[in-house]
Amino acid sequence: MKELFGEFLGTLILILLGNGVVAGVVLPKTKSHNSGWIVITLGWGIAVAVAAFISGKLSPAHLNPAVTIGIALNGGLAWASVIPYILAQFAGAMVGQVLVWLQFKPHYLAEENPGNILGTFSTGPAIKDTTSNLISEILGTFVLLLTIFALGLYDLQAGLGTFAVGTLIAGIGLSLGGTTGSALNPARDLGPRIMHSLLPIPNKGDGDWGYAWIPVVGPIIGAVLAVAVFKMF
Amino acid sequence: MKELFGEFLGTLILILLGNGVVAGVVLPKTKSHNSGWIVITLGWGIAVAVAAFISGKLSPAHLNPAVTIGIALNGGLAWASVIPYILAQFAGAMVGQVLVWLQFKPHYLAEENPGNILGTFSTGPAIKDTTSNLISEILGTFVLLLTIFALGLYDLQAGLGTFAVGTLIAGIGLSLGGTTGSALNPARDLGPRIMHSLLPIPNKGDGDWGYAWIPVVGPIIGAVLAVAVFKMF
Amino acid sequence: MKELFGEFLGTLILILLGNGVVAGVVLPKTKSHNSGWIVITLGWGIAVAVAAFISGKLSPAHLNPAVTIGIALNGGLAWASVIPYILAQFAGAMVGQVLVWLQFKPHYLAEENPGNILGTFSTGPAIKDTTSNLISEILGTFVLLLTIFALGLYDLQAGLGTFAVGTLIAGIGLSLGGTTGSALNPARDLGPRIMHSLLPIPNKGDGDWGYAWIPVVGPIIGAVLAVAVFKMF
Amino acid sequence: MKELFGEFLGTLILILLGNGVVAGVVLPKTKSHNSGWIVITLGWGIAVAVAAFISGKLSPAHLNPAVTIGIALNGGLAWASVIPYILAQFAGAMVGQVLVWLQFKPHYLAEENPGNILGTFSTGPAIKDTTSNLISEILGTFVLLLTIFALGLYDLQAGLGTFAVGTLIAGIGLSLGGTTGSALNPARDLGPRIMHSLLPIPNKGDGDWGYAWIPVVGPIIGAVLAVAVFKMF
Repeated sequence: MKELFGEFLGTLILILLGNGVVAGVVLPKTKSHNSGWIVITLGWGIAVAVAAFISGKLSPAHLNPAVTIGIALNGGLAWASVIPYILAQFAGAMVGQVLVWLQFKPHYLAEENPGNILGTFSTGPAIKDTTSNLISEILGTFVLLLTIFALGLYDLQAGLGTFAVGTLIAGIGLSLGGTTGSALNPARDLGPRIMHSLLPIPNKGDGDWGYAWIPVVGPIIGAVLAVAVFKMF
Repeated sequence: MKELFGEFLGTLILILLGNGVVAGVVLPKTKSHNSGWIVITLGWGIAVAVAAFISGKLSPAHLNPAVTIGIALNGGLAWASVIPYILAQFAGAMVGQVLVWLQFKPHYLAEENPGNILGTFSTGPAIKDTTSNLISEILGTFVLLLTIFALGLYDLQAGLGTFAVGTLIAGIGLSLGGTTGSALNPARDLGPRIMHSLLPIPNKGDGDWGYAWIPVVGPIIGAVLAVAVFKMF
Repeated sequence: MKELFGEFLGTLILILLGNGVVAGVVLPKTKSHNSGWIVITLGWGIAVAVAAFISGKLSPAHLNPAVTIGIALNGGLAWASVIPYILAQFAGAMVGQVLVWLQFKPHYLAEENPGNILGTFSTGPAIKDTTSNLISEILGTFVLLLTIFALGLYDLQAGLGTFAVGTLIAGIGLSLGGTTGSALNPARDLGPRIMHSLLPIPNKGDGDWGYAWIPVVGPIIGAVLAVAVFKMF
Repeated sequence: MKELFGEFLGTLILILLGNGVVAGVVLPKTKSHNSGWIVITLGWGIAVAVAAFISGKLSPAHLNPAVTIGIALNGGLAWASVIPYILAQFAGAMVGQVLVWLQFKPHYLAEENPGNILGTFSTGPAIKDTTSNLISEILGTFVLLLTIFALGLYDLQAGLGTFAVGTLIAGIGLSLGGTTGSALNPARDLGPRIMHSLLPIPNKGDGDWGYAWIPVVGPIIGAVLAVAVFKMF
């Protein structure tokens, strides 16, 4: 239970800070409006580091079903824990998104573009192209998982590994996020997309459900590939 | 006394560097004029880290009444020390703000917009909405305190925890600061607001005193909530 | 073989993330389009750190023929290993570039400027001037190698040296990259330039082969100079 | 002699990377042209960290006469070493500036604004005001020295203190640099100003020698004040 509380709380903080920075940049009349890609990517990188610090003494701080599946495949987690972990991560992502909405409520009311509103919940492609969008999510998550596995080989002191993962997230966003926004995490994308359909937001438009499978399936494929390459180590 | 000197000096440096970066970005004719949200948030993050390094060998480097109250609630500080700490923090914030004014004096003289001048002293909401603004300050301080408590559980080596808190401040600013500017700290907001009424600045306008209670009450509520959640750990 | 796999995989990740950030900034319709020099330089810095973390337990993580030659001159690598290392680095760079192309394929199709396309493969001078461009690549690689040698004198703990090298790469890019784009690495420049001639990209133009020797020869001269100065230590 | 070589080489690298980033942002037709205050301040921060890593095993890596004087006042350096250290720092700054000029030579030839050219050598005030400009240099160097002294009280591991000082330099630039550009260092300002009068650059204009004493005297006053406050610790 303590572990599940850790995954829930960590993913909640991850989404509060991660989609918080997107909302701050995208929604109108904020002080951080249109402050650019460097703000979004550093904000997401720090979001992951903070969420990992908060949850890391309660749980292994996966905060991401693709990480949980990859680590289970790698023998680092019992398979019986996988579904409960994933459910806790989804619950955390959905509650975290409610907090984003509360935090930015007057700015959501001022937003007239449905695409911008959805963009503060879930990722979407810069150019729609199923194959290419799927490759983007696979490659980004492949780098994420391979680096996490490699970091486990070092004798990093307390805290330094957490900084490394936050830096990694910023780097993947900077380098590969320009195409699909680098969801890399089924809970981060699908959880908020469900909340998008539930929360009462004027002008919110549809949830682009035709795209919703890509940031779920792509990260899982990327995680499996990373496990395969890491076996060569 | 040594501890109170530490809280005074640390909060002085915090405001000198923290409101310094705001003044540099907001006031006219500076070299950093309009250099954006990334400059403000990284500047604040480093301000906290530097202030904590300077004061950390004299005092526990709270530099913030909400942190002091939260740590006292958590049993980490005697209640008898709380009021003296807070007074030292307010005194440091007020003297630090005088230094900001001295540093940027020709630029204050060149500023004609009262809102910009006040913005280099105290925070203000992007969209005025009492409930939402209060929630913003509560959520930001909740994340701040919960992370500080969690960091205390790790065996971080000298210096690494200070980097973590600086990074955290930058992250909260990036992710949640777009709404109210994330005061997170009653001394950081109310101390300079008092100086705003005292310093002789042309075109300075009023101090928006109707808003002044929110960055005092919100951070304290956020700190109490963080203590409550941390008890579950 | 394990070492060569490390050099191959590390250079692959280096180019995927490093030229990935360039593609994201340069190519049209990405979410990171025109997001500026800070994005490119931080993206490259993190690319090097991530690539070094991934390959560092397999190989010494040179990921750069100029580093390999410099370290061999300094007595840190057997000369018999130099050519195999360099071949593995080139192979990694070329495969990494194919992944960049796959990642950004719809954006390459939308690009009409041949210079922009080449810029996502190889470096080029801001102002063409053979002497000056050569000096730029020499100076940048000199600083890179001298710092790497100096870092070896410290007893840095696991991970901290990797952060230092990533920070160094960002710094060289920020400070010296404005002239030639700071290739600093023959494999990073020539490997992708070869792929540029092979991959089927509309509007790709020529590979500016007249410039191609400078980011090969300059870094090697810079490495030799760094070895000479380091002998004075 | 080894120490003087360290101070020379470190200050050379400091100016090459530090004024390199200014030249890259200010001079025309570079890839980093007009890339903003975040680029300049992070570039300077990393410049200091890299220069300290390179020289730190040869000398105490002051790289700044104000630091040398402050540390001598604090009892950390024999007074007989002060003048030789300062001469080595000036020599390093002057040779480093020649390298900046070589690195950016075609861009200096393309620059028509004398103020921009001087700005890549020495600092200058955003608004000329002798008292205020002097206060700016005093305050910035006061924070620099006080933090360096405070950092000495921590048992920071190898490398972490160097990162802290680099971060500090970026922070002072972000927060206080908007007024005078934060020279903080007589060698950094006066050394290159002398080279400005010697190097053959078309359109270079005069060296604003009436301002030249402020970034020499201000940092020394700031250092003395920091020693006085640190005595209270």
